[in-house]
Amino acid sequence: MLAAADDIVGYAPYVARVPVNPRQRRHGSDNRVEAERAEFALDLALRGRRVAVVSSGDPGVFAMASPVLEAAAAGTRFAGVPVGVVPGITAAQAVASLAGAPLGHDYVTLSLSDRLKPWQVIARRLAAAAEADFAIAIYNPASRSRRRQLIDARDLLLGHRDAGTPVVIGRAAGAAEQQVTVTTLGELDPARVDMRCLLIIGSSQSRVMRDASGAARVITPRRYPG
Amino acid sequence: MLAAADDIVGYAPYVARVPVNPRQRRHGSDNRVEAERAEFALDLALRGRRVAVVSSGDPGVFAMASPVLEAAAAGTRFAGVPVGVVPGITAAQAVASLAGAPLGHDYVTLSLSDRLKPWQVIARRLAAAAEADFAIAIYNPASRSRRRQLIDARDLLLGHRDAGTPVVIGRAAGAAEQQVTVTTLGELDPARVDMRCLLIIGSSQSRVMRDASGAARVITPRRYPG
Repeated sequence: MLAAADDIVGYAPYVARVPVNPRQRRHGSDNRVEAERAEFALDLALRGRRVAVVSSGDPGVFAMASPVLEAAAAGTRFAGVPVGVVPGITAAQAVASLAGAPLGHDYVTLSLSDRLKPWQVIARRLAAAAEADFAIAIYNPASRSRRRQLIDARDLLLGHRDAGTPVVIGRAAGAAEQQVTVTTLGELDPARVDMRCLLIIGSSQSRVMRDASGAARVITPRRYPG
Repeated sequence: MLAAADDIVGYAPYVARVPVNPRQRRHGSDNRVEAERAEFALDLALRGRRVAVVSSGDPGVFAMASPVLEAAAAGTRFAGVPVGVVPGITAAQAVASLAGAPLGHDYVTLSLSDRLKPWQVIARRLAAAAEADFAIAIYNPASRSRRRQLIDARDLLLGHRDAGTPVVIGRAAGAAEQQVTVTTLGELDPARVDMRCLLIIGSSQSRVMRDASGAARVITPRRYPG
């Protein structure tokens, strides 16, 4: 799909990961301008260009599929533009595969960003996930300016779950500089988490095992005690 | 990884999807024998073979990564065997990409099978997901013998969510015979759901739009009202 496109549109660091093709035009944009970016891409398509909007991971998970499809809905000036979604490996699964199998059983996928939803909704969802003993994949745990959310989330989760619960911090999964750290909920240091991180909080059943090299592997078994 | 393997191990229909390579041995097994299959694969590896254990979708999501890593943990006779996990497109994301962007916001991934966990755990998790207004991706919604779970799940969800809530039924996603149906929670007919299906239940924010061809696209927006 990328090779067939005339234009590549996306957040600039993601566009930069697409191999250069001199036939294509590349349009890198700032972060946080999803609606404008979607309309820009659809406008190009309306003018006959074949456009690829790129996200990192899966475009359907906290990424560009929703804003593009919303902008192309019936009743808008882009209603005639055909849009397809190509799935990808989302950060939760990339990090999980590097850490073992922490998402091998029921889990929640939750963004900790309160930029587009109220904190009360996030807190309610975190509490529900904790009470029902889901493993939890946390997107957007922190940014340079958002430092409070992860501290509050950790404290909330510690009210439901043991301090020894395994936690995986995956940073830049899929990139050359990728890093995976296994820690516990009690020892989770929010200061070490930035916007390139994805966190996986284990359920009560998750456990840490050592592999042949001594590295920590986190496993959430498929079996749940009756 | 598949091309480099000496042996391909997995549930027979999944092994059958791997391109034939006369250099390789293929070991298709029955369903529901995850632990035995994992030990069989690790035993081959211990004898010097390079083994690929295949799942459909992502091996880390309700699939073989957990049982293989559990069987290879320290203290077992397979403790020295190095195991890697290669992520893939899990059914929830495959179906979501075909239906639009129903998982564009916070969601729960839940198996409805009570083969390995008590129904009370499933019901508690469903209720928590419904109360906190998550979209819900349902794995293993039904099988030939398990017909009651999806009826109970639908009734439970209708206690929390509008009958008009969009529901996506994806069947055999990724296969030639794949089918995607968009319906509503109130009109969901469990009789039409079998073990090759994955369901996505929308949140209160999910909505159905029509694309250029008139096909239904389900979108869960990234924005949540304050």
